[in-house]
Amino acid sequence: MVNKRPGNIFIIGIGPGDRAMMTDEAFTAMEDADVIVGYTVYIDLVRNVFTDKRFFTTPMRQEVERCRACFDFALEGDNVAFICSGDAGVYGMAAPMYELLPEYLNRGITADNLIVIPGVTAAISGAAVLGAPINHDFCVISLSDLLTPWEIIEKRLMAAINGDFAIVLYNPSSKKRNDYLKKACDIMLSAGAGEDRACGYVENIGREGTKSTVCTLKELKDTQVNMFTTVFIGNSKSEVINGKLVTKRGYKI
Amino acid sequence: MVNKRPGNIFIIGIGPGDRAMMTDEAFTAMEDADVIVGYTVYIDLVRNVFTDKRFFTTPMRQEVERCRACFDFALEGDNVAFICSGDAGVYGMAAPMYELLPEYLNRGITADNLIVIPGVTAAISGAAVLGAPINHDFCVISLSDLLTPWEIIEKRLMAAINGDFAIVLYNPSSKKRNDYLKKACDIMLSAGAGEDRACGYVENIGREGTKSTVCTLKELKDTQVNMFTTVFIGNSKSEVINGKLVTKRGYKI
Repeated sequence: MVNKRPGNIFIIGIGPGDRAMMTDEAFTAMEDADVIVGYTVYIDLVRNVFTDKRFFTTPMRQEVERCRACFDFALEGDNVAFICSGDAGVYGMAAPMYELLPEYLNRGITADNLIVIPGVTAAISGAAVLGAPINHDFCVISLSDLLTPWEIIEKRLMAAINGDFAIVLYNPSSKKRNDYLKKACDIMLSAGAGEDRACGYVENIGREGTKSTVCTLKELKDTQVNMFTTVFIGNSKSEVINGKLVTKRGYKI
Repeated sequence: MVNKRPGNIFIIGIGPGDRAMMTDEAFTAMEDADVIVGYTVYIDLVRNVFTDKRFFTTPMRQEVERCRACFDFALEGDNVAFICSGDAGVYGMAAPMYELLPEYLNRGITADNLIVIPGVTAAISGAAVLGAPINHDFCVISLSDLLTPWEIIEKRLMAAINGDFAIVLYNPSSKKRNDYLKKACDIMLSAGAGEDRACGYVENIGREGTKSTVCTLKELKDTQVNMFTTVFIGNSKSEVINGKLVTKRGYKI
């Protein structure tokens, strides 16, 4: 029996989904792949662009199965484009792929077969819509406690305020967690952030219906956001200038 | 006298510089512009691609003059591509542009004339080379104290360790600050990070001579990096897997 030479797996950040916000290497890697793998929703974003490709999708909560499917395709000799929204290395599939890799080493796949192609994550694309909210030191925190104990999230929110970072919140809400943003705001307020702290949020970044709102932390606390929203908390010196959220770097103007 | 209708200013993150790592909208905005403005080094990255354009450069430390030049071109009716390496909103020129905007409002430029086009910042592109070092909550901190008092940098390093974030360090060194990475490592160690904390750094991301190294925090402390290096500190659970730096999200593998 002759073993096939394994294919490469490109773990790709496609940005918000629109071609214009994709890098060229992300697009090319999909174009060159034999099969495109991803979460059902993201595959729908590219299915019409690459009509001649094979596609493989798994629904939410089946991320590890999705990763294993990539290894299986690669073992068959296929080049795989494994797509993630935003960036593949920010809450994406890059880490679980490297965690699974040791299981496949004896079948001929090495770290060289995994290639991460960076993309524009929501912290970056959302910031561009709001103005310049993370133009100085910042933290990125996910409010999802599906995989992370809430105590750790709480500790990070407090540390972020203690360090006076600008903060980006991913996954601020879901059907089951519709009060998490309120809880997070309460924690940040109790850690010393002022009620008038400049904040903002962006819905549907880079997609139809992009909408951005600037507000105070007090207002944010009472805002109901959906799961397609990215939330920004300024640092203690952030300002709203002509409707834009701006965290200064410190240049003498 | 008839006032000219002002042009638009596209504040563009070009990523590391290579076309393959640029988004399409970044490239198109440069293609469509009348004049391309930027720091001398970044303009050299695109000068050969857009041979028919006018260019305007200023050296380092003349960032505000560079911003003002963009407004002046726009007042003449030119569409301006103002390029920044990485992302324009991460230690880039987006914030100072919004800070200057109020001075130009009475001359007809509004917030709608400033359009930020997001790009792949070094935290994202460097992470892709190292593996998946920021695949969970993370902080980005610049070690440059040109515009930020060192005490604030120190406070943020400590807060980042207290919150158990993965950490990305920008500007870890310069000619005058060749011991700053060592100082930063000492602060993180004193804040409770273990000497064996998994770390890594990448030189010349996305450019010729890209080189990545994985090491411990103790080793990092004694490493001399150059100014074209981005440094990554794992969180307390980050691991090196097959030579890659991986910060797990928490999937059950």
